Amino acid sequence: MVYIGVIGEAEPPPHLLEAAEAVGRCVAEAGAILVCGGLGGVMEAACRGAQAAGGVTIGILPGHDRREGNRYLTYAVPTGLGHARNILVVRSADAVIAVGGRFGTLSEIAYAKIEGRPVVGLDTWTLERAGLPDPILRATSPPDAVAKALAALARSH
Amino acid sequence: MVYIGVIGEAEPPPHLLEAAEAVGRCVAEAGAILVCGGLGGVMEAACRGAQAAGGVTIGILPGHDRREGNRYLTYAVPTGLGHARNILVVRSADAVIAVGGRFGTLSEIAYAKIEGRPVVGLDTWTLERAGLPDPILRATSPPDAVAKALAALARSH
Amino acid sequence: MVYIGVIGEAEPPPHLLEAAEAVGRCVAEAGAILVCGGLGGVMEAACRGAQAAGGVTIGILPGHDRREGNRYLTYAVPTGLGHARNILVVRSADAVIAVGGRFGTLSEIAYAKIEGRPVVGLDTWTLERAGLPDPILRATSPPDAVAKALAALARSH
Amino acid sequence: MVYIGVIGEAEPPPHLLEAAEAVGRCVAEAGAILVCGGLGGVMEAACRGAQAAGGVTIGILPGHDRREGNRYLTYAVPTGLGHARNILVVRSADAVIAVGGRFGTLSEIAYAKIEGRPVVGLDTWTLERAGLPDPILRATSPPDAVAKALAALARSH
Repeated sequence: MVYIGVIGEAEPPPHLLEAAEAVGRCVAEAGAILVCGGLGGVMEAACRGAQAAGGVTIGILPGHDRREGNRYLTYAVPTGLGHARNILVVRSADAVIAVGGRFGTLSEIAYAKIEGRPVVGLDTWTLERAGLPDPILRATSPPDAVAKALAALARSH
Repeated sequence: MVYIGVIGEAEPPPHLLEAAEAVGRCVAEAGAILVCGGLGGVMEAACRGAQAAGGVTIGILPGHDRREGNRYLTYAVPTGLGHARNILVVRSADAVIAVGGRFGTLSEIAYAKIEGRPVVGLDTWTLERAGLPDPILRATSPPDAVAKALAALARSH
Repeated sequence: MVYIGVIGEAEPPPHLLEAAEAVGRCVAEAGAILVCGGLGGVMEAACRGAQAAGGVTIGILPGHDRREGNRYLTYAVPTGLGHARNILVVRSADAVIAVGGRFGTLSEIAYAKIEGRPVVGLDTWTLERAGLPDPILRATSPPDAVAKALAALARSH
Repeated sequence: MVYIGVIGEAEPPPHLLEAAEAVGRCVAEAGAILVCGGLGGVMEAACRGAQAAGGVTIGILPGHDRREGNRYLTYAVPTGLGHARNILVVRSADAVIAVGGRFGTLSEIAYAKIEGRPVVGLDTWTLERAGLPDPILRATSPPDAVAKALAALARSH
């Protein structure tokens, strides 16, 4: 079974919410499990899309209470670790898709690279460091993002 | 949805494996989700029991690789935190049932008490501290353990 | 350099405060660094004793703010991990001395045993589990506690 | 007392080692405590600089063993959390200075922004996200980096 992490900001503009929902739908249609940070915004939209397509969603929550999770979580894992739970979202996923994102998403992109998880980006951070190639696989649409994540996983096995 | 944590040692004697499997079966029959540390021994036996009864099991793994989980996990969450993941097993559960147990289980019992989760024990640690009542609800059988965990949750809501 | 962890409850009775302060003094007189959870009660008393004897104290704090530490900390490490920081107190220490203690202390005793750190106890938990010897080295006084911790470390090297 | 975190890569080119050592010296000359991840490369060079100037250095280590720390650490805190300890390096610091850096450093920059710690950069990541200003205060030299970190802290109090 493949787990795809969807990461992104909690208060995104409308076009990112639409993108996240479509990403969630494509993840579920591919038969993958969707993992996320469990809260609102991109996370909630992705879960809504996944559940609408019959998929399973797992939220790794920052707080102590399962009820802080969005209502489209199939399973919720409260960690009580605050932002330190970001690394767990990444470790729970085989590949991650960033939709927009602020600093929490940036920490997850960094951790995904440390942990060797492929990172696909939709309208997310631009990262430059002398001597390093772009660490993010750039996608042009939600279906393309999920296709690129699955292709990267296929190459790594 | 109720999440019941089952905690216990990785290399238990046979009678504890039987007890753990029965506990897992009763958890699933009660319609609860079983959460555990995801490895062998009591954890694996409990998951086997739960899956045999049609239940869902979630393993919060100490390592980085989903494949270290036992084969009766419906979902696996690798944390890479080593024994520091014990607190996450507890926080993921609404109540915990200890079956036997060594020091890892002891840390989980302690954390469950800190976090206000009811702890039910089957053949587990005896803990005494001046001025404190026995912190563990003692069960006489696997069905009794699950019944006591559910009753404690009902009282707390 | 040797690091000795002092663990114990945040709101202890007066005789445990006196014991903790004397433990801290003996740790410093032995030339060891005192590590603790950084808050009040046993932790603060131990730090006060250590600083009075010219020693260094390090507090591994549960919150985000260095200022939550007690005023007898030479150095404070805020973790933001809540009770999950307990395992870090243990891992920072070469041996731990429990003075009294409730469930937080119990989690630290358990983690110390998991991590192979000697545990010395002064008026602390009684732990019994079939087939296991008492996991705690029982001390009869603060100087005896520090002596037993140092002796255990000497044996393990 | 002010704690300045110095973050950066473990295997940097020579000019970054020189810069890191100079940063460490300036941190110590400013009377601040230097916090870092405790390993080699930028971390070790910064500690060497700080100790040469009479400063105190604290290493928050990823592993279980204090001895994995570089030899210029005054105090070492083993966490056993692997890369998850990166957030602790940031939380231990009042401001952070990035010298070069790969993905570990990127995760720390992200966490520093999440936690509201000023981030000063010397030859480090370029980060761009629509609608956000450059999150890093760019420094032109090691003394400038430390001056900018201290000025940012002064402004925030």
